[in-house]
Amino acid sequence: MDRIYNFSAGPSVLPVSVLETASKEMLNYKGYGLSVMEMSHRSTVFEEIISSTENSLRKLMQIPDNYKVLFLQGGASLQFSMVPLNLMQKNKQADFLITGNWANKAQQEAVKFGDAKIVASSKDKTYSYIPVTKKSDFRKTADYVHICTNNTIYGTYIKPNDLPDVGDLDLVADMSSNILSEEYNVNDFALIYAGAQKNMGPAGVTVVIMREDLIGQAPDNIPNYLDYKIHADAGSMFNTPPCYSIYMCGLVYQWIDKLGGVKAIGEINKEKAQKLYDYIDNSGFYKGTARKEDRSLMNVPFVCENQELEAQFVEEAEKEGLQNLKGHRSVGGMRASIYNAMPTEGIDALIKFMQDFAKRNK
Amino acid sequence: MDRIYNFSAGPSVLPVSVLETASKEMLNYKGYGLSVMEMSHRSTVFEEIISSTENSLRKLMQIPDNYKVLFLQGGASLQFSMVPLNLMQKNKQADFLITGNWANKAQQEAVKFGDAKIVASSKDKTYSYIPVTKKSDFRKTADYVHICTNNTIYGTYIKPNDLPDVGDLDLVADMSSNILSEEYNVNDFALIYAGAQKNMGPAGVTVVIMREDLIGQAPDNIPNYLDYKIHADAGSMFNTPPCYSIYMCGLVYQWIDKLGGVKAIGEINKEKAQKLYDYIDNSGFYKGTARKEDRSLMNVPFVCENQELEAQFVEEAEKEGLQNLKGHRSVGGMRASIYNAMPTEGIDALIKFMQDFAKRNK
Repeated sequence: MDRIYNFSAGPSVLPVSVLETASKEMLNYKGYGLSVMEMSHRSTVFEEIISSTENSLRKLMQIPDNYKVLFLQGGASLQFSMVPLNLMQKNKQADFLITGNWANKAQQEAVKFGDAKIVASSKDKTYSYIPVTKKSDFRKTADYVHICTNNTIYGTYIKPNDLPDVGDLDLVADMSSNILSEEYNVNDFALIYAGAQKNMGPAGVTVVIMREDLIGQAPDNIPNYLDYKIHADAGSMFNTPPCYSIYMCGLVYQWIDKLGGVKAIGEINKEKAQKLYDYIDNSGFYKGTARKEDRSLMNVPFVCENQELEAQFVEEAEKEGLQNLKGHRSVGGMRASIYNAMPTEGIDALIKFMQDFAKRNK
Repeated sequence: MDRIYNFSAGPSVLPVSVLETASKEMLNYKGYGLSVMEMSHRSTVFEEIISSTENSLRKLMQIPDNYKVLFLQGGASLQFSMVPLNLMQKNKQADFLITGNWANKAQQEAVKFGDAKIVASSKDKTYSYIPVTKKSDFRKTADYVHICTNNTIYGTYIKPNDLPDVGDLDLVADMSSNILSEEYNVNDFALIYAGAQKNMGPAGVTVVIMREDLIGQAPDNIPNYLDYKIHADAGSMFNTPPCYSIYMCGLVYQWIDKLGGVKAIGEINKEKAQKLYDYIDNSGFYKGTARKEDRSLMNVPFVCENQELEAQFVEEAEKEGLQNLKGHRSVGGMRASIYNAMPTEGIDALIKFMQDFAKRNK
């Protein structure tokens, strides 16, 4: 089979041109005579790779100078521990907005380390919407407020202009599934973290963007790998970083930059998502599961009006090279994850298949 | 420049045929129409990759059925915390053999979590030898004894038949820089861990091989990523694993298997190292820095009798495509890391250069 259209929720589709570069450079990176995988992380050539990768991300997200960028291991799951261990220190309190499975996991982990309060949750309706909050909902003594900006499973998201009003509190965001998908203002956040495997690169590297003044609060007795200060002081080289994954992220950042940056790709993403949602809404055959106002640009969950057809839908789509469309078990139905690297042609092919399938099964 | 001979201590040289396969499969893994980087870790095809990778390692190291194999993130450095958090639980005591920088770091980290005693150390002579211990040196109440089987910086190692006699105590080994280099008996160890970036694959995945009965001792309040039980119960899929790094390890394991397994590569490694040590010893120009009986098969540190020539040596070698030969600052001189993937031709080219350099500078 030729390249499929891969609607996987993550790890997920990467830009073809990025993969081509990686393939071409695998045995000999830019004439240096070795693979990026084989380079000492202390070598000049790798230092250039990691610093240019960081600089690309800084440019794309307009990261202010008073924010550190870290490349860590352990995924968002390790951040669920690292954030409270480092930031929930003054009053041992943090407030959580529960908009899905991952936000929930972050809160459950934070409970181990302090008073992790659920301020609002959309669990009552299978996380199909973003709960509305007001400033007074948050404790003035909270060390931070934690949100998840995009909910992969449920297909909802918090828009850049619709962040909860937390006043002077520090806002921490798990942005794993929509980082770089449209413009967020980094200044709105105290700390952003994101596993790479949706919009940035392969699994195995997690990006942390954090305000410098938050570094250095962790107690001495925590595992050293979990202390942001250790990584920040060492420029993400406390121990051997996941070098190849960082290199791949760098290639993806360059690809976004060439497309015109985050603003440009944000517009493409809005068009892609709109096209798919419009078709679903007008089909009379399929139905979106998330509240319209809160619909994600990255993950589009939908069902058939006749649920019995869903297994068949997924199976037939698979054969047509439209793969990984099965919805998460907690929502059912289908889910099309249409991250940055999903081309418009993929959306068009999906809609065409959906039309054909609807016609055949009406 | 064509491919260099890369004597880096890690990340380090990988087999050319492995890199060729990775390059070829980058855009389309075995006709599935996507890169391994793009696969859902929950997909059947990736599940096949991770389970066949584990099975290859089990075959190569003859890992008994009562040992679990885990693929984790965070490097050996995270294991420095995980091992005590999980295993130093009964008596809160562990005994350490300090044979170099990394063994030292493991002990320093364990101090945070209990009574981490240094039983013997070779610090007095810049870790140039392996201290001799006897069974009575270890506390009968120690929850485990920790060793590092190969000392990358100092070029010493603990031979498979020369492990410290710890009686009934559990032996834990950091095997990062010589795993799969020759046959060790897994039954001699309670737990083995190794970062991949020397003998197995790219940085970003750490292999843990542990006896099953040791799992489940960690207290509930530790960060969940640091609990072996969570990873063991989930088959290394508690969260998204470093999928591509695991795939690369699998390719390296297959490569070793084709060469005849660990026994066969162990013989090759002994020949390679012997050739280089013999030349050094007979040169009258260079000198090895580690005690002869304890010399590593993986890392060969040496100096020039005339130290002033060393910078020139490294610089000229670099130009000849013999790279990353500069020794660690704590030892000085040169170091040739000659891991599994360093071909005999690389050793021959190095010796030839060393001969020429000696002739020109005698």
